[in-house]
Amino acid sequence: MSVERTLYHFPLDPASRQVRLALGEKRLAFQEKVEKYWEQRPDFLTLNPSGLTPVLVETQGSGRATVICECRAILEHLDETTPEPDLLGREPADRAETRRLMQWFDRKFDFEVNGLLLHEKMEKRLHGLGAPELAALRAGREALRAHLAYADKLLQGRDWLAGRRLSLADFAAAAHLSVIDYFGDVPWRDYPATKTWYMKLKSRPCFRPLLADRWPGLTPAAHYDDLDF
Amino acid sequence: MSVERTLYHFPLDPASRQVRLALGEKRLAFQEKVEKYWEQRPDFLTLNPSGLTPVLVETQGSGRATVICECRAILEHLDETTPEPDLLGREPADRAETRRLMQWFDRKFDFEVNGLLLHEKMEKRLHGLGAPELAALRAGREALRAHLAYADKLLQGRDWLAGRRLSLADFAAAAHLSVIDYFGDVPWRDYPATKTWYMKLKSRPCFRPLLADRWPGLTPAAHYDDLDF
Repeated sequence: MSVERTLYHFPLDPASRQVRLALGEKRLAFQEKVEKYWEQRPDFLTLNPSGLTPVLVETQGSGRATVICECRAILEHLDETTPEPDLLGREPADRAETRRLMQWFDRKFDFEVNGLLLHEKMEKRLHGLGAPELAALRAGREALRAHLAYADKLLQGRDWLAGRRLSLADFAAAAHLSVIDYFGDVPWRDYPATKTWYMKLKSRPCFRPLLADRWPGLTPAAHYDDLDF
Repeated sequence: MSVERTLYHFPLDPASRQVRLALGEKRLAFQEKVEKYWEQRPDFLTLNPSGLTPVLVETQGSGRATVICECRAILEHLDETTPEPDLLGREPADRAETRRLMQWFDRKFDFEVNGLLLHEKMEKRLHGLGAPELAALRAGREALRAHLAYADKLLQGRDWLAGRRLSLADFAAAAHLSVIDYFGDVPWRDYPATKTWYMKLKSRPCFRPLLADRWPGLTPAAHYDDLDF
């Protein structure tokens, strides 16, 4: 069955990155369309009324297209339609743990860390909202440390975040952390288990496109694409 | 296979309500434990480190327990382990639409409406944070109207929110709207298609426990449990 895929994404959007990692890991080729989601392009709003990236369009050989909007919907869809390699887990308990951690990063981390750090360092720049506020940056960095400590505790007893196998939980965490890392804000050396885990992920072929991302006016930290950071 | 279920939930939490509706619709019996999540009870934090409701604990006849945390993880789990009645949709495009709308309500509605209306009217009361701010209430009610208009547009062409069949998208929307409705803030008469849809949902057996919810100090609107509102 031949399916053509087009992904509308923004390179520094953690939700988009999760989908790019999953497509890469499942070796599914796709065409890329970079979407400046904050511009709210009418054609893009027709595809996804929420106006958010990522959106995946799958076109069958027959010409019939399916539009899949929002990160979780796309990830569950990919795992249902291309089950190998499995990225959710085989047993109900494994799947529950993978999904618990996806929610942890997409909700809790996003609210507590991205809402401060990425808002101040990235969104304000992209949307022309002025200089970052130091108090917000400080609060974001403190929240980030709490999340890194939690990941480190998990990874001291597990090969991967959700257990013995690579899963979408790893992609969720890595997608979020990699954007923060682009801005140089991850204190890796204080969280050795998490650093080792991130080195393993960074070396995977699916990760390479993310390390090549650059956005005009936003220069990544020197170590951003360094596999030996 | 005999499975005993215990649901930790808070009656006026939209995420918890979605799980109660799904359990009810699938006719799965469960024991209830009402959790005042804001008290951050240590035993509850051991179950779910994020401290959020809902949490479902399934105990097999063998005594082995599986802890499933967070709304989306529980809903996907229930649909995988008890596939009938199907609440996600059979075709990939249907499942994508159901999940798109789940995200719409859990993220966009939650941020734009609950973050203002429920925060001011419920959370401030529960957590002793003082009186509601009128400007926030006004902004929340305005955002609510935009969401109701969107639901109404969808429901003018569809039997249920995601298409021809009842799905988790309906439960997501109804769980959120029903909590807002507890506080009397839904202008139903201006959105007739949505009102008809909500009447259909309210009459389902799975909805009855939600209509019986009361919380000390928070009195529901007079029409809250009225099937002919």
